[in-house]
Amino acid sequence: MEDRLVIGGIELKSRLFTGTGKFPSKEAIRETLEASNSQVVTMALRRVDFDNPEENVINYIPDSFTLLPNTSGARTAEEAVRIARIAKAAGCGNWIKIEVISDNKYLMPDNQETLKATEVLAKEGFVVLPYVSPDLMVAKRLEEAGAAAVMPLGSPIGSNRGLKTKELIRILISEIDLPIIVDAGIGKPSHAAEAMEMGADAVLVNTAIATANDPVKMAQAFDYAVQAGRIAYLAGPGAVKDYASASSPLTGFLKGE
Amino acid sequence: MEDRLVIGGIELKSRLFTGTGKFPSKEAIRETLEASNSQVVTMALRRVDFDNPEENVINYIPDSFTLLPNTSGARTAEEAVRIARIAKAAGCGNWIKIEVISDNKYLMPDNQETLKATEVLAKEGFVVLPYVSPDLMVAKRLEEAGAAAVMPLGSPIGSNRGLKTKELIRILISEIDLPIIVDAGIGKPSHAAEAMEMGADAVLVNTAIATANDPVKMAQAFDYAVQAGRIAYLAGPGAVKDYASASSPLTGFLKGE
Amino acid sequence: MEDRLVIGGIELKSRLFTGTGKFPSKEAIRETLEASNSQVVTMALRRVDFDNPEENVINYIPDSFTLLPNTSGARTAEEAVRIARIAKAAGCGNWIKIEVISDNKYLMPDNQETLKATEVLAKEGFVVLPYVSPDLMVAKRLEEAGAAAVMPLGSPIGSNRGLKTKELIRILISEIDLPIIVDAGIGKPSHAAEAMEMGADAVLVNTAIATANDPVKMAQAFDYAVQAGRIAYLAGPGAVKDYASASSPLTGFLKGE
Amino acid sequence: MEDRLVIGGIELKSRLFTGTGKFPSKEAIRETLEASNSQVVTMALRRVDFDNPEENVINYIPDSFTLLPNTSGARTAEEAVRIARIAKAAGCGNWIKIEVISDNKYLMPDNQETLKATEVLAKEGFVVLPYVSPDLMVAKRLEEAGAAAVMPLGSPIGSNRGLKTKELIRILISEIDLPIIVDAGIGKPSHAAEAMEMGADAVLVNTAIATANDPVKMAQAFDYAVQAGRIAYLAGPGAVKDYASASSPLTGFLKGE
Repeated sequence: MEDRLVIGGIELKSRLFTGTGKFPSKEAIRETLEASNSQVVTMALRRVDFDNPEENVINYIPDSFTLLPNTSGARTAEEAVRIARIAKAAGCGNWIKIEVISDNKYLMPDNQETLKATEVLAKEGFVVLPYVSPDLMVAKRLEEAGAAAVMPLGSPIGSNRGLKTKELIRILISEIDLPIIVDAGIGKPSHAAEAMEMGADAVLVNTAIATANDPVKMAQAFDYAVQAGRIAYLAGPGAVKDYASASSPLTGFLKGE
Repeated sequence: MEDRLVIGGIELKSRLFTGTGKFPSKEAIRETLEASNSQVVTMALRRVDFDNPEENVINYIPDSFTLLPNTSGARTAEEAVRIARIAKAAGCGNWIKIEVISDNKYLMPDNQETLKATEVLAKEGFVVLPYVSPDLMVAKRLEEAGAAAVMPLGSPIGSNRGLKTKELIRILISEIDLPIIVDAGIGKPSHAAEAMEMGADAVLVNTAIATANDPVKMAQAFDYAVQAGRIAYLAGPGAVKDYASASSPLTGFLKGE
Repeated sequence: MEDRLVIGGIELKSRLFTGTGKFPSKEAIRETLEASNSQVVTMALRRVDFDNPEENVINYIPDSFTLLPNTSGARTAEEAVRIARIAKAAGCGNWIKIEVISDNKYLMPDNQETLKATEVLAKEGFVVLPYVSPDLMVAKRLEEAGAAAVMPLGSPIGSNRGLKTKELIRILISEIDLPIIVDAGIGKPSHAAEAMEMGADAVLVNTAIATANDPVKMAQAFDYAVQAGRIAYLAGPGAVKDYASASSPLTGFLKGE
Repeated sequence: MEDRLVIGGIELKSRLFTGTGKFPSKEAIRETLEASNSQVVTMALRRVDFDNPEENVINYIPDSFTLLPNTSGARTAEEAVRIARIAKAAGCGNWIKIEVISDNKYLMPDNQETLKATEVLAKEGFVVLPYVSPDLMVAKRLEEAGAAAVMPLGSPIGSNRGLKTKELIRILISEIDLPIIVDAGIGKPSHAAEAMEMGADAVLVNTAIATANDPVKMAQAFDYAVQAGRIAYLAGPGAVKDYASASSPLTGFLKGE
């Protein structure tokens, strides 16, 4: 039996979600996304220029991908809801990543407004993936509100700082039945592998890939790392020990000569 | 041009070195080694039972592998030298991993005796891979003594504790021209990926694979993780930032409506 | 000019807040509190037995302390408000630490209900210190709601795991004008010192003191550590460097002989 | 019974060792050393200008201090031995901190040469405190050679990076009977407290104090932090837990009303 992540009725083989921001060029997006083996890509709706196909980021996304439009730019639940509806009307499908951010320095999400938007959009039939600051009680309410997954941040967006909220994410993984997708802050493949080893269901990586010297290679690296972490989680790691433990018995090799 | 690690004149595609200790059964060794894609495997010479082929661990190592016999059990340079010569005479080739350990609790290597054994064996034409507690000056002397690589420990053997000596290993990577192969302590694929991202040339993983619930799967996970870390190192990661950095500009989406 | 923390109009010299839970005996509480030099102590109102003075924890608190009754046991804002009013009516003063917790495993606070209780109680003239999972937007709303301080957790209550949410707390310190008091998870004096070095205004320590083998000594240790961290913050630490930097010039000592 | 550290027959109350390098002025040295409550101070012999008392750093060291001249500048055991003898002849006493460093970038000590110098100087009656890269087998040999203590580095000299070699230092503390004095890399009081909580016998702090904006205040901060860590070690910390543990029972407060 194959290991699959199911979200909104779609079976995903890859547990690496990607994004379209910060790439050196639009042309680089397609090649990188293909190298990543990812099947879900997020993009800011405001970057979709419907009147100008050449400028439209959607034209650079391979057809095999599920689109995950996000509401970046929204500062309130109401704005997020509005963006989600525009995205759907524009043919971007019914998946939506809710980002509600009014903090300009750390870009920390507003969990309360995100919850409100989730309640509204889940009722309207969206597959809602809310981006949150990791918080157990908020995650429980998102679950009740009909979210399809919870996307806690590892560290501030675009900081590449890694899993600085590990302790809180671990609690979500333990207590929440929805898929947990670590989003934001993952800066290196080892961070992605660690999130997966902890039992996260997927990770979303954008900045770390798009701002690498070689985004295509880095996308491949993240693909491997996410697979490594997931397989290790399934393989059941051995115990961590305080002391050493010899790989082979230490007795007697030369003694009996 | 392909990325290859060259040691003792042999070109290696895989940067994951493996071992034969602690497996649940000898049969498990072959399948796991194959799944790992590794090309170099270490084994304790005392585990080689020359009189009894069925018990001989070598019979369970795929032919494609380069053997890296180790001197585990040696407590002095002299004993290590003796084991190395026996290994060569027994047809195990001229690669040798020097382990000299007299500490029974943490199994910490004896750098001084290891250096002595390296000097002797390098002169005899061995491809010498010394296992050491990470120490810049010792690594410099090993380089002068003709070592083929330096194998610093990440944490005590078999502890699965990860890269606890990261700061010292980073100095070796920066200052030593020989390949640096992190050996001991790597407990999870994310640890291996991190070592490779730092610029280590390879890692040796035994306990973490052999003691997993599913060693075959775990071997595959480490294969992917080592590739992920190496590719990321070559791809040149983006900057780590103190603050957030939006994936797309935050201005104006809904403002102009 | 002396360094003082002012909360609710009270000038505090000590930045170590303490608690009364988990002590081996009520007698141990007084001696420990005195050794801590703390000036604020929290206690669960349900532990106050008004009918039975000998059992009443308040009788073991030195008079010099400001009482900080907490609402532990409350699962909703409404319950927290009720407990706060009872505490005030019972003569415990007008300070209140709001704890609203319905998660039984990790005891993670409910930020949303805590915010609601804060709004109500601040209007009633309480000096409100809400205990929260660290979240920038929640902290901003608590500020608007009239909280006297924000008390983010370092890790789950009683876990002694340390500052696992450091990254999020640092953001609160940077962005919120209220005093930030790290509460929960601090297990060792070094954790408390680190919180203070980061710029936290105070820390609350209960379990780590009460469950030490020698609570009186441990209280003294935390007193010193909190002072150490605060003074270091004020003294302005030197830069952290990637490389070494000699304490004295390396040139020439024996060269000129 | 008071807690004292005994080295070379001298009973020390303070477990904070200090240095004289990198201060903004010689005048700042005296005031800072006094504020530190330290009783042992290290200084580079080459900074002792015997012909010019005003320039002589020794004149700025309070009389109550035990001098710990160091051999910085030495690149070999022979040079270190020579400096030690000069120091003694010049009236600096018979304590000597051996520093042998030939690496110019990370200033990593040369354990092998340090061991040689220790053997010679211990036989000559010096109280020898060797500065080393942490390594169990080297520490055992230093013990046999008659060292009075072992001084492992936490991270490169002057880097303020903290206890990056914690795992190796912990092994020394566990296995070596000599006092373990963590020297180099300690950048903040919390680092010092952590070293002491682990069971280190003392710490040496120079750069972090001398390069603070306010060295006098920072010296006081380190004094408190070292005491905090030591007392905590003696007080026996409580257990670290995976889950939360309520400070008071969670049952029933409002239920029975």
